[in-house]
Amino acid sequence: MAVYTDVSDDDLAQFLQRYNIGELLSYKGIAEGVENTNYILHTTAGTYILTLYEKRVDTADLPFFLGLMEHLAQNGVSCPLPVRDREGRNLNTLCDRTAAVITFLEGFCARRPQPHHCAKVGKSLAQLHLAGDGYEMRRDNSLGPSGWRPLFSHFADAADTIAGGLQCEISAELDWLESNWPADLPESIIHADLFPDNVFFLGDKLSGVIDFYFACNDYLTYDLAICLNAWCFEEDFSFNVTKGRALLKAYTEVRPLEDAERAAIPILARGAALRFLLTRCYDWLNTPPGAIVKPHDPKAYLRRLRFHQRARTIADYGC
Amino acid sequence: MAVYTDVSDDDLAQFLQRYNIGELLSYKGIAEGVENTNYILHTTAGTYILTLYEKRVDTADLPFFLGLMEHLAQNGVSCPLPVRDREGRNLNTLCDRTAAVITFLEGFCARRPQPHHCAKVGKSLAQLHLAGDGYEMRRDNSLGPSGWRPLFSHFADAADTIAGGLQCEISAELDWLESNWPADLPESIIHADLFPDNVFFLGDKLSGVIDFYFACNDYLTYDLAICLNAWCFEEDFSFNVTKGRALLKAYTEVRPLEDAERAAIPILARGAALRFLLTRCYDWLNTPPGAIVKPHDPKAYLRRLRFHQRARTIADYGC
Repeated sequence: MAVYTDVSDDDLAQFLQRYNIGELLSYKGIAEGVENTNYILHTTAGTYILTLYEKRVDTADLPFFLGLMEHLAQNGVSCPLPVRDREGRNLNTLCDRTAAVITFLEGFCARRPQPHHCAKVGKSLAQLHLAGDGYEMRRDNSLGPSGWRPLFSHFADAADTIAGGLQCEISAELDWLESNWPADLPESIIHADLFPDNVFFLGDKLSGVIDFYFACNDYLTYDLAICLNAWCFEEDFSFNVTKGRALLKAYTEVRPLEDAERAAIPILARGAALRFLLTRCYDWLNTPPGAIVKPHDPKAYLRRLRFHQRARTIADYGC
Repeated sequence: MAVYTDVSDDDLAQFLQRYNIGELLSYKGIAEGVENTNYILHTTAGTYILTLYEKRVDTADLPFFLGLMEHLAQNGVSCPLPVRDREGRNLNTLCDRTAAVITFLEGFCARRPQPHHCAKVGKSLAQLHLAGDGYEMRRDNSLGPSGWRPLFSHFADAADTIAGGLQCEISAELDWLESNWPADLPESIIHADLFPDNVFFLGDKLSGVIDFYFACNDYLTYDLAICLNAWCFEEDFSFNVTKGRALLKAYTEVRPLEDAERAAIPILARGAALRFLLTRCYDWLNTPPGAIVKPHDPKAYLRRLRFHQRARTIADYGC
């Protein structure tokens, strides 16, 4: 949510000479992206996003992410398209940062998602899963099950400062998930962070999906379970079964679930809730006071986790 | 430099129904404006800036500022134009803040101004001064000479923590300026903050002037003296006489200076340097650590002030 790197007009003009996107008309730093600096560019050719990847980002992963956006766009997914420069590169250097120019996607997030939004997200997620097929690069999910225990170990001793008994509760959940995590579900490219912030709508239509910087190879149904967590809970942490049904129904109309995938929904939803609980706890405990980006309250995912612990089948999610 | 107020899509859509500016396509919070929240809006009719005036801003002054932008635009100044809603209002309420929609001006600031930029600024400032004539509203300059001593009193005791001897130096300067400030120079609307941040260029052309939130009635030549401070010093605090000459020459070609105005340039420049020294000192001492907006170093204006103290005539500025 901040502009970490201030780009001068001279530096930007020189950088843009690499690209065939017309003359620069204006550029404004935008308050989007937690890790990176983003500018909205107007040029005589249209509107673009300029992203400068800040030092915390592992630039080794960037070719995977940008290549994926290109692959998905070529396969019909509405998402930002990295612009290649005159030499065919989609990554360059600006102000000592790795930087990319990406097409601008009109649309805006639904701050209070309704069931019809959930249906559109379900459909788009399934389309994204089909479109990801054939992408030749691979990236392991560093925030998948094998990453949870190491992440927990960084803050386990301080967990009870967030909520009494949290250390025990996470520890038990980790044990249970490690023993029960399903094997051999269909795996391909997942978005892994398809929250309402990352989906744009225009009127009644979903106009596109953004922010592929957590994308990786993992169970497709795990991505669906992330969306159940991200889109179908109300502010009082109750699960809205109408939204769940809309999301699952729209997804399965495009990509039907195998029996093993249907059966795994409750445990995958538990895993997804734990994954966001862990990263939110970590951020909560490691964000200095006065930081520009305020951490999210982890307890929202503790409440979701407890819902999933009580769920028995996909029917508990409305399907 | 921050988005203080988060506007939801629903609230924005409802707000925009008041206006005849097409359908909303996207909106992004931009990192511009120290006091206010700004969004860049794309609609089917074009690009706009949405400004929410935050609680620190005196909304009683807003009709003056917005009316002025309208008056100037009607008189040929390239500046953002407040959009009136279907009922003719240029101010409304959004998220509990006073809010305005303003046309978007393409162009971008010169981070390293050259003499040709200074010439264009001089010409535009003179045009702005002529265009301001006939504006029927009036606003006193709260940061003019009568405001300096009260402002200084808020931090005088802490001034020496910024630079040794600063309290005495400011005190002596205040005494001198109060005794020597000129009377009866031509007065009208001034911008009062025409720094490089507030002037946009496109290629070799000045595309427009923004940020009228310090505009007021005062000596026109005082505005010119502010520009000499803002545009003509190098990073080592030396005055660039080529830039000064370019600025003054271009200004006087459009609006010739009276003899009294020419004679007053060195003292007006001292006053302008003191005004920015005072507000920067105040901000420096009153900005909490970790604040989003970092204060500017006041000492840059102490160095400028010392240059002006040694200047004797307008010739010292290149003219």
